Amino acid sequence: MKITNFRNVETKEVDDPDAKGVKVRWLISEKDGAPNFAMRLFETEPGGHTPYHQHAWEHEVLILKGVGNLVTENGSFSLNKGDAVFVPGEENHQFKNASEETFIFLCVVPHQK
Amino acid sequence: MKITNFRNVETKEVDDPDAKGVKVRWLISEKDGAPNFAMRLFETEPGGHTPYHQHAWEHEVLILKGVGNLVTENGSFSLNKGDAVFVPGEENHQFKNASEETFIFLCVVPHQK
Repeated sequence: MKITNFRNVETKEVDDPDAKGVKVRWLISEKDGAPNFAMRLFETEPGGHTPYHQHAWEHEVLILKGVGNLVTENGSFSLNKGDAVFVPGEENHQFKNASEETFIFLCVVPHQK
Repeated sequence: MKITNFRNVETKEVDDPDAKGVKVRWLISEKDGAPNFAMRLFETEPGGHTPYHQHAWEHEVLILKGVGNLVTENGSFSLNKGDAVFVPGEENHQFKNASEETFIFLCVVPHQK
């Protein structure tokens, strides 16, 4: 059992040359004994974005604060507080801040085996 | 790819005789093609609670609104907005509303095989 407020979890800059102004907190991960998947909180500055990329694993996302865009091969879609987003494996995607406030979202991913 | 606001997802009463005043929305599930785990949003009325129970699978939780308690074999712990909770498999647990406003949390679980 673990309870921790997100504010008490270390913030790391997302270490990817195609990311800009994105920080991540690993709220629950393998270190906590989580056997299957990890819960991360992303904070994206105004003008910031994750890389436009693809990978084998899925994302399950909940938008917590701010306004963003999800960029895909099929266009760009507005993201607002309370939106749930499922990004299947292998699909190109990018999360972008679209406002002047911090864009915050939760993103759950399976552990990389 | 799926984007949907939580308000547009059907609300179901939690169908368990030991639950009280708890509704669930399955935001992302196997129906969406999610291969590994499901993201659900729980809304608990004042006075409401989930069952005190255990099961083989883990929970990864984020508290979104309100004030609650997590009841465990080792006592009861306060839950507030922004708290992340990891409940390992096999551990007894119960989520209770501890205030006069709706207590809302996200709970991610692996699919039951």
